[in-house]
Amino acid sequence: MDIKITNGTVITPTDTYRADIGIQKGKIVEVAQRISGGAKEVVDATGAYVFPGGIDMHTHLDMPFMGSSSSDDFETGTIAAAHGGTTCIVDFAIQGKGESLKKTLNAWKARARGKAVFDYGFHIAICDLTERILQEIPKAVAEGVTSFKTFLAYKGALMIDDGALFQILRKCNEAGALVMIHAENGDIIDLLVKDLLTQRKTAPKFHARSRPPEAEGEATGRAIAIAQMAGAPIYVVHLSCKEALDKVQEARDNGFPAFAETCPQYLILSYKNYEEPGFNGAKYVMSPPLRDKSNHAFLWQGLASGDLQVISTDHCPFNFKGQKDRGKKDFSQIPNGAPGIENRLCLIYNEGVNKKRISVNRFVDLVSTTPAKLFGLYPEKGTVTVGSDADLVVFDPKQKYTIRAKTNHQNVDYTPYEGYKGKGAPRVVIAQGRVLIKEGKFLGRPGQGRYVKRKPMRLV
Amino acid sequence: MDIKITNGTVITPTDTYRADIGIQKGKIVEVAQRISGGAKEVVDATGAYVFPGGIDMHTHLDMPFMGSSSSDDFETGTIAAAHGGTTCIVDFAIQGKGESLKKTLNAWKARARGKAVFDYGFHIAICDLTERILQEIPKAVAEGVTSFKTFLAYKGALMIDDGALFQILRKCNEAGALVMIHAENGDIIDLLVKDLLTQRKTAPKFHARSRPPEAEGEATGRAIAIAQMAGAPIYVVHLSCKEALDKVQEARDNGFPAFAETCPQYLILSYKNYEEPGFNGAKYVMSPPLRDKSNHAFLWQGLASGDLQVISTDHCPFNFKGQKDRGKKDFSQIPNGAPGIENRLCLIYNEGVNKKRISVNRFVDLVSTTPAKLFGLYPEKGTVTVGSDADLVVFDPKQKYTIRAKTNHQNVDYTPYEGYKGKGAPRVVIAQGRVLIKEGKFLGRPGQGRYVKRKPMRLV
Amino acid sequence: MDIKITNGTVITPTDTYRADIGIQKGKIVEVAQRISGGAKEVVDATGAYVFPGGIDMHTHLDMPFMGSSSSDDFETGTIAAAHGGTTCIVDFAIQGKGESLKKTLNAWKARARGKAVFDYGFHIAICDLTERILQEIPKAVAEGVTSFKTFLAYKGALMIDDGALFQILRKCNEAGALVMIHAENGDIIDLLVKDLLTQRKTAPKFHARSRPPEAEGEATGRAIAIAQMAGAPIYVVHLSCKEALDKVQEARDNGFPAFAETCPQYLILSYKNYEEPGFNGAKYVMSPPLRDKSNHAFLWQGLASGDLQVISTDHCPFNFKGQKDRGKKDFSQIPNGAPGIENRLCLIYNEGVNKKRISVNRFVDLVSTTPAKLFGLYPEKGTVTVGSDADLVVFDPKQKYTIRAKTNHQNVDYTPYEGYKGKGAPRVVIAQGRVLIKEGKFLGRPGQGRYVKRKPMRLV
Amino acid sequence: MDIKITNGTVITPTDTYRADIGIQKGKIVEVAQRISGGAKEVVDATGAYVFPGGIDMHTHLDMPFMGSSSSDDFETGTIAAAHGGTTCIVDFAIQGKGESLKKTLNAWKARARGKAVFDYGFHIAICDLTERILQEIPKAVAEGVTSFKTFLAYKGALMIDDGALFQILRKCNEAGALVMIHAENGDIIDLLVKDLLTQRKTAPKFHARSRPPEAEGEATGRAIAIAQMAGAPIYVVHLSCKEALDKVQEARDNGFPAFAETCPQYLILSYKNYEEPGFNGAKYVMSPPLRDKSNHAFLWQGLASGDLQVISTDHCPFNFKGQKDRGKKDFSQIPNGAPGIENRLCLIYNEGVNKKRISVNRFVDLVSTTPAKLFGLYPEKGTVTVGSDADLVVFDPKQKYTIRAKTNHQNVDYTPYEGYKGKGAPRVVIAQGRVLIKEGKFLGRPGQGRYVKRKPMRLV
Repeated sequence: MDIKITNGTVITPTDTYRADIGIQKGKIVEVAQRISGGAKEVVDATGAYVFPGGIDMHTHLDMPFMGSSSSDDFETGTIAAAHGGTTCIVDFAIQGKGESLKKTLNAWKARARGKAVFDYGFHIAICDLTERILQEIPKAVAEGVTSFKTFLAYKGALMIDDGALFQILRKCNEAGALVMIHAENGDIIDLLVKDLLTQRKTAPKFHARSRPPEAEGEATGRAIAIAQMAGAPIYVVHLSCKEALDKVQEARDNGFPAFAETCPQYLILSYKNYEEPGFNGAKYVMSPPLRDKSNHAFLWQGLASGDLQVISTDHCPFNFKGQKDRGKKDFSQIPNGAPGIENRLCLIYNEGVNKKRISVNRFVDLVSTTPAKLFGLYPEKGTVTVGSDADLVVFDPKQKYTIRAKTNHQNVDYTPYEGYKGKGAPRVVIAQGRVLIKEGKFLGRPGQGRYVKRKPMRLV
Repeated sequence: MDIKITNGTVITPTDTYRADIGIQKGKIVEVAQRISGGAKEVVDATGAYVFPGGIDMHTHLDMPFMGSSSSDDFETGTIAAAHGGTTCIVDFAIQGKGESLKKTLNAWKARARGKAVFDYGFHIAICDLTERILQEIPKAVAEGVTSFKTFLAYKGALMIDDGALFQILRKCNEAGALVMIHAENGDIIDLLVKDLLTQRKTAPKFHARSRPPEAEGEATGRAIAIAQMAGAPIYVVHLSCKEALDKVQEARDNGFPAFAETCPQYLILSYKNYEEPGFNGAKYVMSPPLRDKSNHAFLWQGLASGDLQVISTDHCPFNFKGQKDRGKKDFSQIPNGAPGIENRLCLIYNEGVNKKRISVNRFVDLVSTTPAKLFGLYPEKGTVTVGSDADLVVFDPKQKYTIRAKTNHQNVDYTPYEGYKGKGAPRVVIAQGRVLIKEGKFLGRPGQGRYVKRKPMRLV
Repeated sequence: MDIKITNGTVITPTDTYRADIGIQKGKIVEVAQRISGGAKEVVDATGAYVFPGGIDMHTHLDMPFMGSSSSDDFETGTIAAAHGGTTCIVDFAIQGKGESLKKTLNAWKARARGKAVFDYGFHIAICDLTERILQEIPKAVAEGVTSFKTFLAYKGALMIDDGALFQILRKCNEAGALVMIHAENGDIIDLLVKDLLTQRKTAPKFHARSRPPEAEGEATGRAIAIAQMAGAPIYVVHLSCKEALDKVQEARDNGFPAFAETCPQYLILSYKNYEEPGFNGAKYVMSPPLRDKSNHAFLWQGLASGDLQVISTDHCPFNFKGQKDRGKKDFSQIPNGAPGIENRLCLIYNEGVNKKRISVNRFVDLVSTTPAKLFGLYPEKGTVTVGSDADLVVFDPKQKYTIRAKTNHQNVDYTPYEGYKGKGAPRVVIAQGRVLIKEGKFLGRPGQGRYVKRKPMRLV
Repeated sequence: MDIKITNGTVITPTDTYRADIGIQKGKIVEVAQRISGGAKEVVDATGAYVFPGGIDMHTHLDMPFMGSSSSDDFETGTIAAAHGGTTCIVDFAIQGKGESLKKTLNAWKARARGKAVFDYGFHIAICDLTERILQEIPKAVAEGVTSFKTFLAYKGALMIDDGALFQILRKCNEAGALVMIHAENGDIIDLLVKDLLTQRKTAPKFHARSRPPEAEGEATGRAIAIAQMAGAPIYVVHLSCKEALDKVQEARDNGFPAFAETCPQYLILSYKNYEEPGFNGAKYVMSPPLRDKSNHAFLWQGLASGDLQVISTDHCPFNFKGQKDRGKKDFSQIPNGAPGIENRLCLIYNEGVNKKRISVNRFVDLVSTTPAKLFGLYPEKGTVTVGSDADLVVFDPKQKYTIRAKTNHQNVDYTPYEGYKGKGAPRVVIAQGRVLIKEGKFLGRPGQGRYVKRKPMRLV
C-alpha cells in the first residue's frame, strides 16, 4: 500500500465516520475501521476530517487580457489552490473570434501543460457561434469538454444573443454537455456604463452601480426561460443576489433542472468594500459586482436548502499595481476579476460550518461532490470510496489562520480577504495518490497534473 | 339642448342607475332622474344601457405593408368601429428607418385627415432609436402623443434591443408618456422560424409553433424587469397567455405599475383554428398567435381581478384573397394581423357579461374607461359625467346578432368570427354630441373625427 | 328642490368632475354643470370635493362588556361619526349564549332606536351555533342582516370551531349573506396569555406579545381554506399585518372571492405605542394588536392594489380612566378596543391622499363605495348618482386640523391620535337629504337615523 | 470475519461503487475493492446492489382497535417487512386517555418483546395532553423516544387542539424530539361525515369525499404555522396531495425545517380504487384517503427535489373479511388502514428507479438514510460505512415478481397491489450482522430484534 491515512473522520455529503483509508496506485482501495497492514507512507489524521479534494469549477488562469494576462498561470495557480485544499480545477478556454473549438481547446491545453500540479479540465466559452461551431460541439464533448459557457453580458465582446444561446443549449443537451451562463443583461449594463462615464462617475464603486442586481435577476430568468424552451438544463455561474436566486428557486420548485453556483466573495464581502478609501475599491471590481450584504443570508439559505449547488471561486487575479490601475480614471477600464482560488475551502468552512449555516457534509458537497457530478468528474473525483481517485484533504478543524497576501501563494499583490481570521485548514493534501501539501509545504512538481477528459453531465 | 337620452340605465365602472342624459355642444351637461326640458333630438334608451363609447387603443388602419396596406383605411375602419359602439381609436404611427417622430406623426395624421368619422389619436412606435429621437420624445408628447410603442419581436425589422427599451422607458416616464411593449422574444422566434422552414414546415399552424407562449412569457418578464430598472410604468400589448399574465401579476402584487391589454381573439379563438382545412389557418395568423384554449380561463380571471386592465383589438386586417395568400408556401410570408375593430364590444359583452365572467361595469371599464385614463383621454372620454364628451353608446342587451363578413362594415373579405351568434348590441351610437349610428345606419360623414392631443398618462 | 350643492368637484371611485347636485326628498335627483333652478338651501362647495358619506362597517356602540359598556352609545357615537363625515354605520349585534338571532337583532335595534342620527344596519356575530340558529340565518337575511361575523379568537367566549365556521359559510352563502371573520388563532393566544401571566409579564405591551402576527396569518389562511371548501366568499375584518395580507392576496390571485378590511390604527400606529410610559399602552390594547411599523407599507400597497377593499374603524371605545384601568395589573383584563369612528376619513385622506399613497377616488371607494356594495347598501348609499340617497360629504381638502380628545365628539377620555395634525376635513355633511353637520356644528337630532334592511351581498 | 459480501455495488445517497464489505460482530468493519481474507459466510452480490436495510418510520403493528387489533403483530409484521428488505421499524405507541407516557411506552415494548425479528423503536402519539404529560416528554426522550406524534384529525378521539400542538412542539424541540403531525382538519371532516351519512351516502368512496384534499392542505399549513410560532421543526406524516405539498414547499423555500413523508399508496393508487365493484373500495379506506391521480406527478417531483424526504408505509392492516366489513353499511365504521410493510422497497424501486423518476441513490435516501437521520437511528442505521450496523440488503435489480396476498407474508387477507408486476427485489437481507432472509427464506427467529433507544433528531 502506498499511503495509509489513519484515525481520521471521513466526510462525504451523506456520511461522517471514523475510518482508516488505504491508497494504492493513485486510488483508494480500502476503507476500514483499522488497516493493520503496512504502507510506504502513513498520514496521521487524528483529530482531522478526511474528505475529497476541493474542485474549483470556475477559474481563469493565464487568461489573456488587453495585452497582458491574469496574474496566476497554471503553475502558480494550481500550487496556490493545492495549499488551500483544492485538487482539481476546470478552467475556461475562451473561444476567439472566428476560432474553432479545437483550436481554443488546444491553446488552453498548451497553457496548462507542464505547469499544473494536479488534474484539470476545461470548459469552452463560446463567444462566436456559427453553424460550424455548433457542429463542433459533439467533437469537443468527445475530447472531454462536457460543459460550455456563454455570456449574456459584455456587449460587443463575449456576449451572444438569445438565439445563439438557444442553439447552444439544444446542441449541448443532445451531446450530454451542460451550458453555463454568465447572466447579466449586457445591453442595460452597456448603457449604464456610458451614462455614468458621461456624468464623470469614474470611481470603482460605479462599476457596481452600472450592474444592478435587477440586471442579473432579469438575465437569470431569461436564461432559464430559454433553457426551458430548449428542453435543456442550465447552470448559472457566480450567482450573487436574491433577484437571481429567486429565479433559480422558482424553476427548481417546478421541477426544472436549473443549477447555480455562488462564490465566497458574494457570501462574505459586500458593496461597502467599493467605498474603501482611494482606489482600493478596484480590488473588488468583478462581474457581477459585490452586492448589498442583505443578500448574504439568502445565498446561505440557498446553499443550505439545495437551491444553490456549488461554490466556486471565479478566480481571476489581476495585480492592484500594474493591472487594476489601468482603470484609475475610468472604472470600465479596471480588469474584471479578483483572486480566490487559494482560500475557498477555508473561508467556506469558517463562514459556513463554524457559523452553523451548513453542515460539514453539505460543505463537502458544495466544494467537491456536486461539482464533480454535474461536470463529469465523478466518481473518480468528488468522493471518498474505494475505487475513487486518491485526491483527498486531511483537514484540521481546529487550525487557526489569518489570510494575508504576503503569506498566500497566489501570484497577485493583494487579497480581498486581507486580515481575515478563521479556524479550520488543510493539514495534508493528497492528489493522484501522492502527498502534494504537507503542513503548508508543497511537495509536488509542476506538470504532474493531467488533463481530464470529463464524462457527460450528470444531473443531481 | 341638442340631444336628450331618456329612460336608459347609465353604466360606469362604479355605477348602474336610471337617468336621463342631456347633451349640448358635444358635451354631457346634465344627468337627472328626468330631464323635463325639450331637446332637438330625443334618443329613447328604454330597456338599454347608456355607457361611454368604446375606445380602441390598438388599431392599424391603412398601415403600409410590403408594398400594400392593411385593408381598412381611416374611413372604412372608423365607420366599422362606430357600428360596433367604438367612438375613439388610438392608432399606431410607425417610425420608419431614420425618420423623425415629427415626420412619422405627420404622415399618420395625413392618413386620418378627411377620413376618420370620430376622434382619434396616435401612439408612435419607435423602431430606430437615436439620441436625436430620444430628445424628440418630449416634443411629441407636447403634440399629444403620450404613449410610445416598442417591439421585442420582429428581429431585423421593428425589434429594438434592451438598452434602447431602457432609454425609451426612462425618457418617456420623464415626459409623462406610457411605453407599450410587444413582448415576444424575437431572437428565439427568428431561429424557430428558420428551423421550421428548413424542415419544410410551411403551413399556417407553424406560425404558432414558431412563437411559443414561453417566448412571450420571457419577453414580458424582461420588459417589466427593465421597466423596474428604469423606474417607469409599462403597458404590455395583446397579452395572450398565462406565461405572460403570471409576470404581470407578480409585478402588480409587488406594487409595480405594470399594465396589460388582451384582445377578443385571445379570449375566444384558439390554436385549433390554425388546423382548419386548407389555408384557412392563415386568417388567424397574427402575433402573438392564438394559444391553447386553456389560456382563456386565466385571461378572463385576469380581466375580472384587475391584472388585465384593457381590451383592445389589434385590428390589422388583410384580405384572405390577395394579401394573406402571399404566404401560401411559407407561413412567414403571411401578413400578420386580423380584423376585429367592429365586433369588440359585442363579443366581449356576450362572452364576458352574458356568461357572467365580468360585470357590465367591469366591461365598460375594460373597453372604455381605463383605456381613456391610462392614455390621457379622460375625463373627456371614457365616462358618463357632466362635462365629458358626448361619446355614448345606447346598448340594447337583448338584441341578437350573427357576425358575418358580408354584413360587417370592415373592408376585409373575412372575419375570424364568421357565424358567431350573440346577444347585446348598440342601438344608437353618439359621438361628439351627434348621432353617428342609429339602428345600424351610419349618419355621420368622413372627416368629422378630430385628432386628439392626449394628456400625460394617468396610472389607475 | 330641497338642497342644491354648487361648484363642488364630485368624486366617485371612477370619476372626478365639476358639477352641481340637486337633492329632493332625501335623494339626489340631478347632476348638472349648473343647476339654475332655486332650492330651499344652497350649499356652496367651492374648492371642495363632494363625495358619498363615509360608511363604517365595523363599530361597537353601546356594547355590553363585563358589566359596563363601550363608552359611546348610538347617539354619541353617530354624532361623532357624522362630524367626521360618516353617514352610515353597520354595528355588530352579538349573539348571547343560547340566544336566538331574532332576539339578538331586536336587542341591538332597541339600543339604536331613538338615538342614531343617521342610517344604520347590523351584522350579527354568531357565537353559539346550533342547528336552530343555522336555520334562522335566512330569516335574519330577510330582516336585512346580510352579513354575519364569526370569531376564531377569544377562546372560551366568542370563538367557534372550524366546523361551525364551515356550516355558517355554507348557509350564509345560500342565503346571500357574507361571512366576516375575526382571524386570530384563539388556541395559541390563550396559551401565550397564560404563559406570559405565569411569567408575571402583565404590562400592556404583553397583550401584543400574546397575539403574534403569525397567529393572524394562520387563522386568515385557515378561514380562507374553509371558505374555499364551503364554496363561499369570506371577508376578513381588521386585517393588521403582512402575514394575513399574503393569504388574502394568494386567494385573490387564484380568483377566489376573499375580501378584507383594515383600519386606520394599523396604518398609522404601531407596536411602539405599547411602550409609551406608564400604563399609557393600554390605550392601544385592541385585537389584533398594533404591529411593527414595517407592516404599514404592505397594507397601503394592498389598499392601492385592491387586495384590501375596505377601511373601517373597529370603533370600540373604553375610557382610559374607569375602564381600561381594570387591567392595570393584568393586560388580559384591559377591555379590548379603541375609539376611531370620528377620525377615519380625515386620517385616511391625510395619510392616503395627501401622502400620495392612494388617489382621492380610491379613498372614496375604500371608505364608502365598496363597503356599500359588499354589504348590500348600494346603490342607495356609497355613490353619487341620481337616484341615490343624499348622504354626502362636502369635503374641504385645504382645511387644517389637530386631533384632540377634548375637541373630539366621541364619548371617551382619550384618542390614540392625540395631537395628530392633518389637512382635509368635512365642511358640510348631509344625510337623508338634510344638513347634519355644518362647519363643525351638529344640526340633526337623535333618533332620525333609520334601520336599513340591507340587500344580499354583492361581490365586487 | 463473520460475513463477507462480495462483488456487489454499494449504494448510498451520495455514492455508487463496486466494493466488498466485511462484517464482524454485527458491524461493518471493512469496505475494500477486494477483501482477500476468509469469512464464516460469503454472500455473493454479483449483479446486485448492496444498500442499507429499509427503515419504515410509520407502522401500526398489533394496534388495538374497537376490541380487536390490526392484523399483523410484531412477529408477522417484522417477518413480512424483512422479506421486503426492511430491517428496522419505528412503530406508534398510542397514549390512552389519562395514561402516562411511560405506561404507553411499556405497553408497546411488551407487544414487541419476544416477537420482533429486527431492531425497532417507538414514537409516542400524544392524545391527551396535560401539564404532567408535558413534563414527561424529556423522560421519554431519555428512554429513546425522540419523536412524538399528534393528530389534527379524528375529532373526539385522537385529535388535539392547536394550543396543545404548540406546547408539544415547544417542549419536544427543547428535548431534541421531532413532532410528527397527522394533518387533516378534524372539525371539517367530522361535519362532512355527518352530512354524508345523513344523506345515506354510506359506500366506501364517501370516506374519500368526507376528507377533501383541501382539509389536508389547510391542516398542513396550520401545523407548519404553529411550528413556526413554536420555533420547532415539524414532520408531516403520510402527505397525500398537492395542496399539502405546496405548504411544505413554501415553508422550505423560506428556510423553515418542515419535513414530510409520503407512502407508496399515494404514489401508485388513486381515488378510482374506491369505485371498484361491491365493497372492494373498503380495502383502500385509510386516512388521508387515496387522491386523484393527478397528485402522483407532484409527489414524485417532491421526492426528487427534496421537498419530501421520506417514504414510509403507514402499514395498518385489517382483514377484508371480519374487520373491514364492519363498515358495510357505514363507511365511517370501516377500520382505517391498509397493509404495505412488505412491499415498500419493491414498489418504490420499480415505480421510482425503473421508471426514472428518482435515482437509485435517492431511493436509498428516501427509504433508509434520511429516516435514520431525522429520527436518531443514524449512523448505526441508514448507511453503509465502516462502523455502521450490518443491516443490509443485497438487492437484485433484475428479479421479477408479482405481488399477491397469498404469497405475501403479511397476516392480512388482501393486498391493495394484488397482481402488481415489477422488477427488482431483495436477494439477501442481513440484520444485526446475520442473514435474515436468503432467496425468500426466513432464517431468523422471533424475538431477536432489539428495542433501539433513539438519539435526538438530526435535521437534514
